[in-house]
Amino acid sequence: MSDLNAVPMTLEGSFALHQIFRFQSSAWHPQERFHRDKLLRQAVTLLSTMEEGGKSGRPNQSALYSLVGHKGDLMLVHFRDTLEDLHRAELAVKQMEFADFLEPTYSFLSVVELGLYESSAKTYAQLQEKGLQPHTPEWDAGIKEVMDRQTAAMSTRLFPEIPKSKYICFYPMDRKRGEAKNWYEVPLAERQRMMHEHGLIGRRYADSVKQIITGSIGLDDWEWGVDLFSEDPVVFKKLIYEMRFDEVSAVYAMFGSFYVGLRVQAADLPKLLEGDIV
Amino acid sequence: MSDLNAVPMTLEGSFALHQIFRFQSSAWHPQERFHRDKLLRQAVTLLSTMEEGGKSGRPNQSALYSLVGHKGDLMLVHFRDTLEDLHRAELAVKQMEFADFLEPTYSFLSVVELGLYESSAKTYAQLQEKGLQPHTPEWDAGIKEVMDRQTAAMSTRLFPEIPKSKYICFYPMDRKRGEAKNWYEVPLAERQRMMHEHGLIGRRYADSVKQIITGSIGLDDWEWGVDLFSEDPVVFKKLIYEMRFDEVSAVYAMFGSFYVGLRVQAADLPKLLEGDIV
Amino acid sequence: MSDLNAVPMTLEGSFALHQIFRFQSSAWHPQERFHRDKLLRQAVTLLSTMEEGGKSGRPNQSALYSLVGHKGDLMLVHFRDTLEDLHRAELAVKQMEFADFLEPTYSFLSVVELGLYESSAKTYAQLQEKGLQPHTPEWDAGIKEVMDRQTAAMSTRLFPEIPKSKYICFYPMDRKRGEAKNWYEVPLAERQRMMHEHGLIGRRYADSVKQIITGSIGLDDWEWGVDLFSEDPVVFKKLIYEMRFDEVSAVYAMFGSFYVGLRVQAADLPKLLEGDIV
Amino acid sequence: MSDLNAVPMTLEGSFALHQIFRFQSSAWHPQERFHRDKLLRQAVTLLSTMEEGGKSGRPNQSALYSLVGHKGDLMLVHFRDTLEDLHRAELAVKQMEFADFLEPTYSFLSVVELGLYESSAKTYAQLQEKGLQPHTPEWDAGIKEVMDRQTAAMSTRLFPEIPKSKYICFYPMDRKRGEAKNWYEVPLAERQRMMHEHGLIGRRYADSVKQIITGSIGLDDWEWGVDLFSEDPVVFKKLIYEMRFDEVSAVYAMFGSFYVGLRVQAADLPKLLEGDIV
Amino acid sequence: MSDLNAVPMTLEGSFALHQIFRFQSSAWHPQERFHRDKLLRQAVTLLSTMEEGGKSGRPNQSALYSLVGHKGDLMLVHFRDTLEDLHRAELAVKQMEFADFLEPTYSFLSVVELGLYESSAKTYAQLQEKGLQPHTPEWDAGIKEVMDRQTAAMSTRLFPEIPKSKYICFYPMDRKRGEAKNWYEVPLAERQRMMHEHGLIGRRYADSVKQIITGSIGLDDWEWGVDLFSEDPVVFKKLIYEMRFDEVSAVYAMFGSFYVGLRVQAADLPKLLEGDIV
Repeated sequence: MSDLNAVPMTLEGSFALHQIFRFQSSAWHPQERFHRDKLLRQAVTLLSTMEEGGKSGRPNQSALYSLVGHKGDLMLVHFRDTLEDLHRAELAVKQMEFADFLEPTYSFLSVVELGLYESSAKTYAQLQEKGLQPHTPEWDAGIKEVMDRQTAAMSTRLFPEIPKSKYICFYPMDRKRGEAKNWYEVPLAERQRMMHEHGLIGRRYADSVKQIITGSIGLDDWEWGVDLFSEDPVVFKKLIYEMRFDEVSAVYAMFGSFYVGLRVQAADLPKLLEGDIV
Repeated sequence: MSDLNAVPMTLEGSFALHQIFRFQSSAWHPQERFHRDKLLRQAVTLLSTMEEGGKSGRPNQSALYSLVGHKGDLMLVHFRDTLEDLHRAELAVKQMEFADFLEPTYSFLSVVELGLYESSAKTYAQLQEKGLQPHTPEWDAGIKEVMDRQTAAMSTRLFPEIPKSKYICFYPMDRKRGEAKNWYEVPLAERQRMMHEHGLIGRRYADSVKQIITGSIGLDDWEWGVDLFSEDPVVFKKLIYEMRFDEVSAVYAMFGSFYVGLRVQAADLPKLLEGDIV
Repeated sequence: MSDLNAVPMTLEGSFALHQIFRFQSSAWHPQERFHRDKLLRQAVTLLSTMEEGGKSGRPNQSALYSLVGHKGDLMLVHFRDTLEDLHRAELAVKQMEFADFLEPTYSFLSVVELGLYESSAKTYAQLQEKGLQPHTPEWDAGIKEVMDRQTAAMSTRLFPEIPKSKYICFYPMDRKRGEAKNWYEVPLAERQRMMHEHGLIGRRYADSVKQIITGSIGLDDWEWGVDLFSEDPVVFKKLIYEMRFDEVSAVYAMFGSFYVGLRVQAADLPKLLEGDIV
Repeated sequence: MSDLNAVPMTLEGSFALHQIFRFQSSAWHPQERFHRDKLLRQAVTLLSTMEEGGKSGRPNQSALYSLVGHKGDLMLVHFRDTLEDLHRAELAVKQMEFADFLEPTYSFLSVVELGLYESSAKTYAQLQEKGLQPHTPEWDAGIKEVMDRQTAAMSTRLFPEIPKSKYICFYPMDRKRGEAKNWYEVPLAERQRMMHEHGLIGRRYADSVKQIITGSIGLDDWEWGVDLFSEDPVVFKKLIYEMRFDEVSAVYAMFGSFYVGLRVQAADLPKLLEGDIV
Repeated sequence: MSDLNAVPMTLEGSFALHQIFRFQSSAWHPQERFHRDKLLRQAVTLLSTMEEGGKSGRPNQSALYSLVGHKGDLMLVHFRDTLEDLHRAELAVKQMEFADFLEPTYSFLSVVELGLYESSAKTYAQLQEKGLQPHTPEWDAGIKEVMDRQTAAMSTRLFPEIPKSKYICFYPMDRKRGEAKNWYEVPLAERQRMMHEHGLIGRRYADSVKQIITGSIGLDDWEWGVDLFSEDPVVFKKLIYEMRFDEVSAVYAMFGSFYVGLRVQAADLPKLLEGDIV
């Protein structure tokens, strides 16, 4: 249990912030037309720049979604290389005059995560075969080597572009720590097996769904965030329903709220506020 | 457990959105009479058109209800062929000037679902007898054939008209995933048996209640939504009470809030706001 | 478990709505005196008529309470023969101009219920002795005969007057459906025994407390509502504390919020708003 | 379980209401100085009279506290001989014009309770030795005699003065009714033993902490309220931490929110609103 | 279980208050420039003085953070020698005119705590070897001696300066009291072992993270608060993720919300409100 080998290696990439807003239309409508136009021009300018991203060589993009249902009207998803850059983006959004008409109803702070279950099991075994003890300098060097290699190999997944798909589905989740069923007490090999089986389902859906997993332990109230992107929203249901029968989900997954939206180009925000989705 | 045969086939039809609003009467009453009349005329026009629906050959209807109790004053229920059309309907409602007096208090996004427990068990067995392996092209073709056939046969249930009944009862629900009692760990045959028994109760009430089941996994915070329609609201209590002793409900059902309302023709909205229910 | 004999017969009577409001005193106080007087006159007129009730030959009454604590300032309790009449009463309350100063904080929709545990056990046994099968026309006729007889015999309890007692205690409750302790899995005879013992406690308090049980399965978020009426509020505590050690409550009862109030005649509403309770 | 001896005798004294308010400073500050002074004079007059209390020969006091943290700014604690008097006090507070700047965020209704675990066990045993049956007139007379004697002996604890201590700590609590650990299923003798051990800890802190226990079953959403009074707030932590390892707390206690405040004389309310705590 | 040796000795130091605010920008923006400047000057003056702290010889500091996400915009963290001083700081913040634009969304009251698991086990054993009984004057004297010595030795940890690190992560937590897994029923020696292992993980992160543990039993709704300070926010995730597999966290930790922010010098508050983080 207190075996340090219990902890799988993870790689971290872009920091991510999901911001969900209710648009205060009853305060917006009484505004003069030219004033609303001015605020929208400013918003479109800022959000278009963020949409493009890419200043530092990496994507560093933001995207705007029109949400379905009462949980919010708009969702902004930001990916940035550092938490400081992410917070700057958040502050820039707050500075828009248009933001005075946006009531924040939810947000989620996380960082892109790749969990290296397979590598971890292998690496820990190899280091132990060499007679190394966890947390000795030699052990740590062995771990670092693997992580550096993987980081390089997976850099486009660690610092992802935001898929251009028409639909998004975002939800936070936890692994259960119940009195009888506790993910964090399951041996690494068992967890690795379950994660592997879980991955096989995802792979069958790879043509129709792209996913980005972010980790939020120590950053927000849930342990992970999941973003699914697809051209067909029925696939969200099919995929998640099928996974719910998978051991790792059936027994160990706890889900937060689900946010489903349609991608809107920043330039189309004014049309959206008049009821048009392009 | 991780047996892919665990997952029953489901068919999906119309996307559905339930919108619940509190009417802000203390902001409404001070408005000038002619202004309120104008807003109501616009609302009646839009909602009447939605009520009729049917542009694409399928029903694609919306319906308005006056809710009992503090959870909301009005409920709109929309069924549309696609999520995009559904979102357009939602945006059109938001665009009404009248909507500035409607505070959204709840919503539920889902898609009409028919769970094929019986066909699934049969089909999986037949395909296995033929020596096929799950997720091979042959297997998938076999599945697709059954689903296509059923989709054609059940198209009026998949894309339903909204029953004209006087009363509605809507509630979301989950299947329990407890530490000891977990629906998603129960073998398919057991689940099929329980669903069958559950269906027998429903069948005895078929004369007095119509129901539409929608699935919301991956779309909203609960797994299913249930709409019951009846001329007699006591039947909602009788039916659901009887079902609560049924194994699948007694042990595995978790319920959200219950919303009970009376059908109001869009044209009668102005009267409703003056306290008359026709 | 899936034995249909598990379900006890219940009789349903008046529909009931509990409405709880916070009075918006800071909006009320700035109103001109004559305007407040006008609104109060309207409110007193409406609520006094509802208090009297009885148009259809049955009580059909409403009653007003001044609540203790922050959950609300006023509670209206309505009993009506039909859900439609109940909703008309609700709409009439909303139509009062005074209602613009009432913020609804809670409500509870239910229907007076008499659970026939003793009769059910007896009747099911008799019908089975006659060799009848559940849900055959003969069985259903036997059931109907018992229910009609009981309905006639208990009509004043099914369509009750509202007791004139000084104090009210209202709370909603559920029967537990835990993983180990599940009321809906307990055999009917066991439940009958527990309900019988439970009733004996109530009987010892019959001189000082009147109670009305309403069922809300399929109508609201809890399964039952309990109204206690007494001249002495200590009795609420004594009775419910004693019952809490009773098996059916200790193990199977889940409680919602408790609302305690003092009866106020509609005519005394203006005095109440000036701080006087008569 | 359904043994009526399971229920310990309790004595009830003063009714108690805890009222927690957020002070709406942003609405208060724009008021004219003389208007604020007038409202404060009224408030000081009313609250000072309540602070003194004692009209009926018993304390019947109220006390004002400045709360730490966001749960509220002010807490009023009222003890009164009857629920009606308590509600009159509540209505008087609402009538203050100053109350329009107080948003109620929480309240707790309860009645001073002394649980007679030791006497109950002894008395029940004695009555049974005499061959008496529970709930016979002779049994009830025996019980009444003990309760009358105890009520007379404990009258200053049943109708307590409010300690003048600088700090207060208030919290509501329940006894657990879990599926495996259920206080209400534990035999009386076991509960008596645990309560006795619990009391021993309290006794060691008697020099530095005074406590008032109130019962709220049937009156509010938790089963008990606890008020601790001390000159040293570290003692709240030390006492409650030590008790948490005590069987009755470790296994059976469920806690609500904790409210910690500093006593403020009513006359010092105006200074408090200018940031001075005397 | 009711063994008093179950309770580990703890030392208490500074009282701590975390205050989280949403900045009401839509009310702020319409204010005249010179008015906003005046309010900011006042706020900077007050918060700068608090930042410096140290009047009583001990740090007694406050610090300002810009929070990421919707839970709040600003967080103030105050440490003071006494609860009275802490409350004075809170009242001073409320007195700022700028505070009328700050809506409190959360707060946490606690006191710096050092849990002496190792010393407790040793000391209790030594005192028992001497034949002493718990809670005798001799026993208490032995305990007091150890605590006085430790208090002197650990005074800079008990009354800590606020680390100057760029990032903060704050969260409250409980130890689980489940029906099967209950921290407060685990023998002291077991708890000591688990806390020791837990500490070893922390020690490996000592170079990159500073932590302050505060206790809140009897003061707030959770049992402990944890503040982590680091120059690298990825470390928050790495550390807490690794600890989650540790027995004491995996089985016994329950977490509240996580608040992540960037340190802002009080003097930079005006820049922050214009979107600049220095």
